[in-house]
Amino acid sequence: MSTDDARFDIAHLGYVELFTPTFDESKWFFTELLGLREVAADGDSVYLRSWDDYQHHSLKLTAHDTSGIGRLGYRTSSAAALERRVAAIEAAGRGLGWRDGDPGIGKTYTFADPDGHPMDLYWEVEKTAPPAEFAPALKNQAERYPGAPATVRRLDHVNFLAADVETNGTFVRDVLGGRPTEQIRLNTGKIAGQWLTFTNKSYDVVYTEDWTGSNGRLHHIAFATDTREDILRAADVFLENGVHIETGPHKHAIQQTFFLYVYEPGGNRIEFCNPGARLILDPDWDVIEWTEAERSKGQAWGMKTIETFHTHGTPPVPGTH
Amino acid sequence: MSTDDARFDIAHLGYVELFTPTFDESKWFFTELLGLREVAADGDSVYLRSWDDYQHHSLKLTAHDTSGIGRLGYRTSSAAALERRVAAIEAAGRGLGWRDGDPGIGKTYTFADPDGHPMDLYWEVEKTAPPAEFAPALKNQAERYPGAPATVRRLDHVNFLAADVETNGTFVRDVLGGRPTEQIRLNTGKIAGQWLTFTNKSYDVVYTEDWTGSNGRLHHIAFATDTREDILRAADVFLENGVHIETGPHKHAIQQTFFLYVYEPGGNRIEFCNPGARLILDPDWDVIEWTEAERSKGQAWGMKTIETFHTHGTPPVPGTH
Amino acid sequence: MSTDDARFDIAHLGYVELFTPTFDESKWFFTELLGLREVAADGDSVYLRSWDDYQHHSLKLTAHDTSGIGRLGYRTSSAAALERRVAAIEAAGRGLGWRDGDPGIGKTYTFADPDGHPMDLYWEVEKTAPPAEFAPALKNQAERYPGAPATVRRLDHVNFLAADVETNGTFVRDVLGGRPTEQIRLNTGKIAGQWLTFTNKSYDVVYTEDWTGSNGRLHHIAFATDTREDILRAADVFLENGVHIETGPHKHAIQQTFFLYVYEPGGNRIEFCNPGARLILDPDWDVIEWTEAERSKGQAWGMKTIETFHTHGTPPVPGTH
Amino acid sequence: MSTDDARFDIAHLGYVELFTPTFDESKWFFTELLGLREVAADGDSVYLRSWDDYQHHSLKLTAHDTSGIGRLGYRTSSAAALERRVAAIEAAGRGLGWRDGDPGIGKTYTFADPDGHPMDLYWEVEKTAPPAEFAPALKNQAERYPGAPATVRRLDHVNFLAADVETNGTFVRDVLGGRPTEQIRLNTGKIAGQWLTFTNKSYDVVYTEDWTGSNGRLHHIAFATDTREDILRAADVFLENGVHIETGPHKHAIQQTFFLYVYEPGGNRIEFCNPGARLILDPDWDVIEWTEAERSKGQAWGMKTIETFHTHGTPPVPGTH
Repeated sequence: MSTDDARFDIAHLGYVELFTPTFDESKWFFTELLGLREVAADGDSVYLRSWDDYQHHSLKLTAHDTSGIGRLGYRTSSAAALERRVAAIEAAGRGLGWRDGDPGIGKTYTFADPDGHPMDLYWEVEKTAPPAEFAPALKNQAERYPGAPATVRRLDHVNFLAADVETNGTFVRDVLGGRPTEQIRLNTGKIAGQWLTFTNKSYDVVYTEDWTGSNGRLHHIAFATDTREDILRAADVFLENGVHIETGPHKHAIQQTFFLYVYEPGGNRIEFCNPGARLILDPDWDVIEWTEAERSKGQAWGMKTIETFHTHGTPPVPGTH
Repeated sequence: MSTDDARFDIAHLGYVELFTPTFDESKWFFTELLGLREVAADGDSVYLRSWDDYQHHSLKLTAHDTSGIGRLGYRTSSAAALERRVAAIEAAGRGLGWRDGDPGIGKTYTFADPDGHPMDLYWEVEKTAPPAEFAPALKNQAERYPGAPATVRRLDHVNFLAADVETNGTFVRDVLGGRPTEQIRLNTGKIAGQWLTFTNKSYDVVYTEDWTGSNGRLHHIAFATDTREDILRAADVFLENGVHIETGPHKHAIQQTFFLYVYEPGGNRIEFCNPGARLILDPDWDVIEWTEAERSKGQAWGMKTIETFHTHGTPPVPGTH
Repeated sequence: MSTDDARFDIAHLGYVELFTPTFDESKWFFTELLGLREVAADGDSVYLRSWDDYQHHSLKLTAHDTSGIGRLGYRTSSAAALERRVAAIEAAGRGLGWRDGDPGIGKTYTFADPDGHPMDLYWEVEKTAPPAEFAPALKNQAERYPGAPATVRRLDHVNFLAADVETNGTFVRDVLGGRPTEQIRLNTGKIAGQWLTFTNKSYDVVYTEDWTGSNGRLHHIAFATDTREDILRAADVFLENGVHIETGPHKHAIQQTFFLYVYEPGGNRIEFCNPGARLILDPDWDVIEWTEAERSKGQAWGMKTIETFHTHGTPPVPGTH
Repeated sequence: MSTDDARFDIAHLGYVELFTPTFDESKWFFTELLGLREVAADGDSVYLRSWDDYQHHSLKLTAHDTSGIGRLGYRTSSAAALERRVAAIEAAGRGLGWRDGDPGIGKTYTFADPDGHPMDLYWEVEKTAPPAEFAPALKNQAERYPGAPATVRRLDHVNFLAADVETNGTFVRDVLGGRPTEQIRLNTGKIAGQWLTFTNKSYDVVYTEDWTGSNGRLHHIAFATDTREDILRAADVFLENGVHIETGPHKHAIQQTFFLYVYEPGGNRIEFCNPGARLILDPDWDVIEWTEAERSKGQAWGMKTIETFHTHGTPPVPGTH
């Protein structure tokens, strides 16, 4: 299986499951503030979608004894692409077999990345029109724009923590067909962070080093907004609603993302990012590598990265702060 | 009483009363979409305030058999200023005497402009902190930012229709101490529209000619938003909610206001305007006069003014379209 | 050659050539107002690039006796993809053979769409760092952000006029691997406009019906801005600089693009569009079809489409207005 | 002279003189980046205006052996107001006598605030139309919008450093007729910062404590932009042009100003602020007082104030860092 073939096999990040020890408060955050809509519920979970989601859901929120991340699902670009990727994953010894899909999702192949984050791969999705009260005024839109206080458009990316970044990035590149676009290389030569994409977006998934050496943890998940103004407005909304703002708004040097980071009530870090998509159209883009010296300059406009950004991950690791 | 003295006697536009034949729908529009908060109710009226209102209310919404405008209230800049303006109004033969103020407003002097629009003048206001659930995170803010779908910051201005513009503008200037900043003069020499201010804002009240020759009618009331992006977002919100968008977003040539006009469910035209304030700091600003030829060029970026903008006023005049 | 294979073979729209009868004024428009940089010149042409262009250029501006569009270049996603598309074009009988590429572009295969618009296909590109004075502060950026009055980020799409839309759309889909995302179908059943994409952007190329029945003409080319605010600012800049604003800013119902249309000094219609990219991530997106009745409602926020938008194309057709 | 009378006597902040040891670079900053236009020059000074300035100039830039602030000019609201304020200043023992005004400014009364900052008071101004090449497209605008990389609309406020804040604030209030709107009170009871206004803007002049105990120094001067997006764009422009960004963009808790601070090449701190005007319409606004505990929370969205913001003033004080 050539790299050329793998490259287009994953269409996009489809959904992610988030664990929360404060289910009701977390649900309030995502539905009342961000404007996600509850489309289904089962057991300890609710399934949420944004107004631009064509699929059944993009966020599964699950009551749990800790914060953290559950399964991440990638949709393939065709049925054949699904078969090709399953074969590659199995060849890499990381396959875990088929399962019934989550609501609205067809048959699903399960696997884990080298760091142990559980993942799904699927092609079939159910496409059903929203109920009348959520029907959009314009027919080229998934559903009605909610006008929530801090409305988000779309689940944008997931930033995993991993004990070893490079191993996971290589897995994404070689087995899943992702392309690294930017990375941080320490003076030791070790890659401490890598941004990879499956689309024309400049990144869809990120791995950064877990300073605790733990496995399977989350740095943050990110939602794209329509405008930077939406992020400035969101900052006011979070201030008024007692949501902890960790850092931002500001602009990252890496990927040039305009960002705001908050902790949802369950403790998971959530990013609001814009532009909706910074495109990389170049099919042979050379990975951009940042040195420690370059990173020490801070973010694009000079703000120093705050300490918790390097230390806070979910779930918490006992014995670390 | 010199003009110099009069000039600073009115501090700002305080409140306006709007009539609506569809009370529940109009209330939904102002509270659910624009984020005004109901602070009191009596009889057929509710009193509403925006998050930046330091007074008790800025909009009184009253169930009525037609649309249209009720009383407009101006707050003076001091108790002495109130006395001076009352004396001037009485000298001009337009005074109607004192009445108890509306909720939260002290003793109120009533009068009417030459076109017959009923008006109030007052100095005393009640300043009470909002209930805890509406308390702002920052203490220099009247109350909590609501994050409504089409949040407005402040009642900005009122645009009256009048059978004769110049008479009313002269009354505002000479008796109330307003300053005209821009006007439209027809080829006949008649003034067809005049914009006047009491503040550093470039206008607070506007008179435009009522083509039906009627008295006491309304062209529109306007709310200021924080940003132009708020107006673009509001346009999407109105589209999704079936609120009739009459024209915009675009930029007026006159006053350079970025605007959006909609009809609230009761039929009154509502403008959303930005910047929050275009300042005129010059204390001897020369009135800008626009000719018919200049007006025929359309709005700032070339959009032609649509027909209903010249014909729709409230309440409707029987026998006209 | 399966459709599945074709789908990813064209990476993106690479460059376009524009003809102008007023070369100096057109060059002023693109360089001084939009901030494109002249990177090369030969004969009657200059080659221009935007600050986000990784390639040598994206606009070739050529002095000509009329306005209109010259060659459009598509970059393929690999060398193998170029071979596959050349074979498909030749099989479709539309191939015209190889030529030396334009400056910075490798060997180039030439062909024409069914309407006769000349096109190029290429894989190889020269990637050279910008001169020091145009070096960006952030290394993940093609070159320095120019801060021009109406700065654009990227050539976004081309909208061709064609005597017969469907034939051309089918060619783009079946031979080039594009996907239609939206289209207008008249009551007669005829397709009057079709939007197609090669990327995750919701469209890269558009065909709309030429009411004159002519071939090879242009409706407009479009540049993406970073923000809607950039478009509002651009409108002021065009007003101040005497550039004819045809319509906008407003939001299209089709594709939901926030737009501004002007005529560059040579007469070609130029669109400024935002968001930088409205993404379609769904790999099996169903084409959205708009009826005549739906189109008659005007743009997203209700503005009626102005007449010249249906009649102005370049070059002008003698005997039509 | 009653406070009531004094309150409206100063119309607005008119101009400020800035000293720079790097004249050419500072001039480049203000003209090429911010879009100010040079309208006159004499000796070691140039006179600059923004596109929204109705007066001759608002910034006088003067070559000097150090950075720092020269004269600040306030325009009165009438000739009588000028006489009243001169009498009050003389009664307070701070008057320094009349001088010929700067270019475009009529006869000028000179004085100093208690901290020794030199100031001017004037009523007469020359109003002349800009040269044709700078004529605006819309007649209600001072001159053509320049579309500069980091265009500013207007000189907004001046923030002085003073050895003793309260004395200076009291002088502004009692003698000049300003109104304090917000202040910082230390646990010791001392006022460490005070914001005062002469207009409907929430502040025009600020005094903050000079930690070095020096007199006559500057914390920053501020320019208002049309939008927050203008400030985000300006940050990119300063990054590309090697202008030192000290802090921001962020939102102040005090006054809720969205800000960006840079050092112009001469070393003076320059703020870019928005909204163009946060209005205080309430004529009897109660001053908002911030405690040390409240200040320790950082800015509105939680960013900690950086150290240099407390220590950097101009000119530098020998022996302090």
